[in-house]
Amino acid sequence: MKKHNFNAGPSILPRIAIENSAKAILDLNGSGMSLLEISHRSKDFQAIIDEAVALFRELLNIPENYHVLFLGGGASLQFCMVPYNLMKTKAAYLETGVWAKKAIKEGKFFGQVDVVASSADKNFTYIPKNFTIPADADYFHITTNNTIYGSEIRYDIDSPVPLVADMSSDILSRPVDVSKYAMIYGGAQKNLGPAGVTFVILREDVLGKTGRPIPTMLDYTTHIKEGSMFNTPPCFAIYTVLETLRWIKELGGVKKMEEMNKAKAQLLYDAIDNSKMFVGTVEKDSRSLMNICFVMKEQYKDKEDAFMEFAKGKGMVGIKGHRSVGGFRCSTYNALPVESIQAMIDCMHEFEAANA
Amino acid sequence: MKKHNFNAGPSILPRIAIENSAKAILDLNGSGMSLLEISHRSKDFQAIIDEAVALFRELLNIPENYHVLFLGGGASLQFCMVPYNLMKTKAAYLETGVWAKKAIKEGKFFGQVDVVASSADKNFTYIPKNFTIPADADYFHITTNNTIYGSEIRYDIDSPVPLVADMSSDILSRPVDVSKYAMIYGGAQKNLGPAGVTFVILREDVLGKTGRPIPTMLDYTTHIKEGSMFNTPPCFAIYTVLETLRWIKELGGVKKMEEMNKAKAQLLYDAIDNSKMFVGTVEKDSRSLMNICFVMKEQYKDKEDAFMEFAKGKGMVGIKGHRSVGGFRCSTYNALPVESIQAMIDCMHEFEAANA
Repeated sequence: MKKHNFNAGPSILPRIAIENSAKAILDLNGSGMSLLEISHRSKDFQAIIDEAVALFRELLNIPENYHVLFLGGGASLQFCMVPYNLMKTKAAYLETGVWAKKAIKEGKFFGQVDVVASSADKNFTYIPKNFTIPADADYFHITTNNTIYGSEIRYDIDSPVPLVADMSSDILSRPVDVSKYAMIYGGAQKNLGPAGVTFVILREDVLGKTGRPIPTMLDYTTHIKEGSMFNTPPCFAIYTVLETLRWIKELGGVKKMEEMNKAKAQLLYDAIDNSKMFVGTVEKDSRSLMNICFVMKEQYKDKEDAFMEFAKGKGMVGIKGHRSVGGFRCSTYNALPVESIQAMIDCMHEFEAANA
Repeated sequence: MKKHNFNAGPSILPRIAIENSAKAILDLNGSGMSLLEISHRSKDFQAIIDEAVALFRELLNIPENYHVLFLGGGASLQFCMVPYNLMKTKAAYLETGVWAKKAIKEGKFFGQVDVVASSADKNFTYIPKNFTIPADADYFHITTNNTIYGSEIRYDIDSPVPLVADMSSDILSRPVDVSKYAMIYGGAQKNLGPAGVTFVILREDVLGKTGRPIPTMLDYTTHIKEGSMFNTPPCFAIYTVLETLRWIKELGGVKKMEEMNKAKAQLLYDAIDNSKMFVGTVEKDSRSLMNICFVMKEQYKDKEDAFMEFAKGKGMVGIKGHRSVGGFRCSTYNALPVESIQAMIDCMHEFEAANA
């Protein structure tokens, strides 16, 4: 039976990226060596990381005065590296979900944190719109896509202070005006590649202002200076990132991704909105194109487990909502084909016909 | 032409671990899903990390009161996490090479560092023997194998204070009395697996004594509490670690590895010691079984480049010595077959016959 992979992350990747990664493990470019067995200082690996950086720059139209880094440790390590490197006195944060809260918690280790707005009052079902970013903050931190709650900031905010964005779960899903951000970072394991590598896009002029000594590995200048190779990088994960970037380019870049993502999301949101049994959990103007969250309407709540089993039986994978939301979540990242959306909608219709 | 992989790291891995990793990328256990596309919270991945931890415990005979963690960020991040978590006032370090120096540098961010002994006076060609570990140090840090210089501490030191060892390049190469250490850590990319994951073996009682607030991701208690899954771990690298551990067990465990490593090293060291042209760089009682460093004797120095080309032509890969030593380095990790040692020795003999 065909599986439809709605995992929230690690999640579906382009099949060609998977197949080429497996090939490179067996034999990298006919070299007689495995990708896993070559030195990160070799010409072969330098070519891989160079192309990955160049394609990332090209696809996101990253201005020349930004650095692109591939690091280990996950976006969670960035929650601490951001304030370590950027916060002198205080920083502003937007609280839109679990990951934003985690970033806020780490900020507090290093100084004053102003939470300029929060949607905690309604279980993070919307993106706050009216807030003031303090002009004396060292930076303003946002989480553009809230994987757990299914809300997304799908526009580039104007900020009077350096804007820092965690784009772990929506990077490369749409064109971004990088020049509006001081820094964009995220774990790779949604749209970009497998777990194990973190990307950082950074304008160097925001560094060196805290007066705080920074341990070498936590200092962005270390990684800028050494081109992400101060120490051995996560080589395999970077290779799969490269293969994923090649696939995005081949298909037409991030504009094409956005077009496809909008079309996929509209199909599923329309099915939810027209359903007797299901209802979306997020306010319409805050809905994510990456993670589509919905539950059974009150009168059908007792059917949720039955639908989960029914959908699993039809090959749907990873559709259980996070425990803090309940119900269902379909993650619809770049690599998810529209056929999987259609299969999910068919499931919903079939179940509804029998149960509503 | 068959390649003989003497890379210092990332380095040769068991072929079966490579092949099974490629298979798991295409389809994990016949699940119809790629290893790269499954959730780290899935039963399938939990089984992978659980087996990797259990096998690591079994193979190294790790006592029950130690935790085994798989983290991102590399051993270089541990250089900072060790003092962050363990140093209240001062720590003692043994300076035996570049990596030890890097660890020392990070220690100084957090307190006083006593370098109890150093072999810097002779370009790190020996392991210092006579030194006193201060009884009031919070811990004593050693680098058991010095990848660049080819020296190794092949015994378990008795320390009056908690002993912390970077075993990046000799873990699983010999039995270790883990109970003599408070902590053992290292990057995987030599004997354990591919680049991108770091192991930590840790006795919890050394934690919580500094009074210092520690950012969440840098705090070992975070990772202990969450079984290495506070955030998304480097899933693929952990899978290849598991396959490598299975291979070690299949072959007979770390005693068997030590036996094989001793036999391989003796062949090559004997060839060097009996050679007219080549000479080892490290004092005999400090020689590493993992990285065998040698140069041309003074009168043949001008032949080094010619030998390098000659050996490359015979399929030898990664034998160039690090720039701080020069000459040649053959890394002879667990997965390097004795046939590769023999091929290297044949190379040396053939070149010597024509040039000495």
